[in-house]
Amino acid sequence: MMATVEFVEDLCTPALIVDLDKVRRNAEGMLERFHKLGVQLRPHMKTHKTLECADIMTGGSRRCIVVSTLAEASFYADNGYDDILYAYPLPFDKVERCAELSERLSLFHVLVDNRLALQELKKRPLKQGKVWKVWMKLDCDNGRAGVPHYDPDALQLAQEISDTSGVELTGIYAHCGNTYACQGEEQIKAVAQETTMITLQFMEKLKASGIHGTKSSIGSTPSCSHPVPDMAMLSEVHPGNYIFYDVQQSLIGSCRLEDVAVRVLARVIGHYPHRNQLLVDCGWAALSHDGGGRLPTGYAIIEGHPELKLLSMTQEHGRVEPISGKLDFKQFPLGSLLTLMPYHAV
Amino acid sequence: MMATVEFVEDLCTPALIVDLDKVRRNAEGMLERFHKLGVQLRPHMKTHKTLECADIMTGGSRRCIVVSTLAEASFYADNGYDDILYAYPLPFDKVERCAELSERLSLFHVLVDNRLALQELKKRPLKQGKVWKVWMKLDCDNGRAGVPHYDPDALQLAQEISDTSGVELTGIYAHCGNTYACQGEEQIKAVAQETTMITLQFMEKLKASGIHGTKSSIGSTPSCSHPVPDMAMLSEVHPGNYIFYDVQQSLIGSCRLEDVAVRVLARVIGHYPHRNQLLVDCGWAALSHDGGGRLPTGYAIIEGHPELKLLSMTQEHGRVEPISGKLDFKQFPLGSLLTLMPYHAV
Repeated sequence: MMATVEFVEDLCTPALIVDLDKVRRNAEGMLERFHKLGVQLRPHMKTHKTLECADIMTGGSRRCIVVSTLAEASFYADNGYDDILYAYPLPFDKVERCAELSERLSLFHVLVDNRLALQELKKRPLKQGKVWKVWMKLDCDNGRAGVPHYDPDALQLAQEISDTSGVELTGIYAHCGNTYACQGEEQIKAVAQETTMITLQFMEKLKASGIHGTKSSIGSTPSCSHPVPDMAMLSEVHPGNYIFYDVQQSLIGSCRLEDVAVRVLARVIGHYPHRNQLLVDCGWAALSHDGGGRLPTGYAIIEGHPELKLLSMTQEHGRVEPISGKLDFKQFPLGSLLTLMPYHAV
Repeated sequence: MMATVEFVEDLCTPALIVDLDKVRRNAEGMLERFHKLGVQLRPHMKTHKTLECADIMTGGSRRCIVVSTLAEASFYADNGYDDILYAYPLPFDKVERCAELSERLSLFHVLVDNRLALQELKKRPLKQGKVWKVWMKLDCDNGRAGVPHYDPDALQLAQEISDTSGVELTGIYAHCGNTYACQGEEQIKAVAQETTMITLQFMEKLKASGIHGTKSSIGSTPSCSHPVPDMAMLSEVHPGNYIFYDVQQSLIGSCRLEDVAVRVLARVIGHYPHRNQLLVDCGWAALSHDGGGRLPTGYAIIEGHPELKLLSMTQEHGRVEPISGKLDFKQFPLGSLLTLMPYHAV
């Protein structure tokens, strides 16, 4: 530990620091959880966007990942990754780049939730005898992208995708983002169960319509941290944030606070006794305004100092003050380090 | 105009777009304003961090700028810029890098608001017969960094800086960030006047103590957009955001909405009539959560559509709905563009 601390003190701040032991533990826990359930884990890369974490999350396979942007897709493709699902409602300005990735990789998947997107795919048939691998986004009461699960159009669109030549209905994709409103394992499991059942019922409807072999996937870090047994009937899951977790996830109940693997390291750069405040060199450019300061300790948890609050930030400065009483400035010399646990790690 | 629109439509979204005519007009207006007052403009780079805007803001001189990080300082130094003020309370982990920049450039300035920082400078005398160029930060009731102007220690610290060999008290630096709480030109001018008077009174105290030739600088885009006549007695000013302005600045009264030079270009990627919403491909990764959604139109103004609200964002998605009534989806076809005016352009 001392060696680590000596190294950390040499870092220029603000610095994002990652506890690799926790990262490995979080990643291995998720791999094991879904290996036991017999469900393919397709981890999401949007939180970290690094090769190092991607290697850990895929258990070294470099296969079967989800990305949220084409920049991420290209980055991973350029670095030997394959079987990449671009889980974003197909943007019409990016069809050509998606086609190139589909032709270049052995598996590149796109997401569709409307007919016009399907038309765009038809207009750009893939070369080399390839077909577009399409996942249809189903909105299981999450309220972001997707065809509402109760809408008769959902089945009809799935049918059209399935019937279109040059296009394959590879899977049904749902995000249970509504788990982010949960508090505690029980509530998380209720949403996970609901999303799983809606998705599986939709899969039954597909089969009844003669569409077979379609995969199903749901995701979100809360639901995949506390999977319900019925999730074993899904083909895949696609959580992402769990690699780091964050304060928000610990409040939701996805993890314990000690599972959070990221910190922002900051230095004390000012003592202002006249207003009972410290200034630290971490503003929203380093930490983000995520969470809106809603924690009792403001925009972050200051590790080892539950008595402190990160009250406000400007671009490169953070104001820290005690939750109550007088600040003991001697405890926090100019130049000393504070470690902040972020509310949200993306 | 049509040519421009055709080009814009070819951009992959989300894209930050900058209106160069407005940038030039904003930059020239500021240069002219302070040329007339006989005050040196030292523009801040933290908003744009580009060479293109820096060239425009310095009128091509590539001299006399302010930065908020050493990354910015090195970037500009590497690209032929000089006379760079690193306007950040000297972080003790960065003294060596500051020393190198001081030795390499003809003018590199640091900021100090405490005695320990001065000790750190003394421990690292500059080579080549150079002296540290130090600005002392004065807090003129802004409440971020700086020695409070009413504190007898302010004069004493200035004296110590001035008396330290190898160190020069180059200037007194104040930020009137409290102009950001203003509404309208009158309130802005009142704060500008107050900050100017406090700074000038402090300069008088310095002279009375036998310290001559020290510069003075105040800044903030609101105050420098509406300077008061007494600002002519300052040596310098250091605004930054004015190069772009933003919705926040227009609400403060620094500029008109039509002066705002930046937009985030987004595409419609989803129609969700069941919840009366559009989805656009601009989340907080592109726009930031700045402003906290406090505008009547949410997190941004959607240009040409005062009836729309950017209600919420996730990392890569934005939810748009009408402020009232039913959305006419035909007006916003899938794939069509919306231009968002950000609340804050950093």
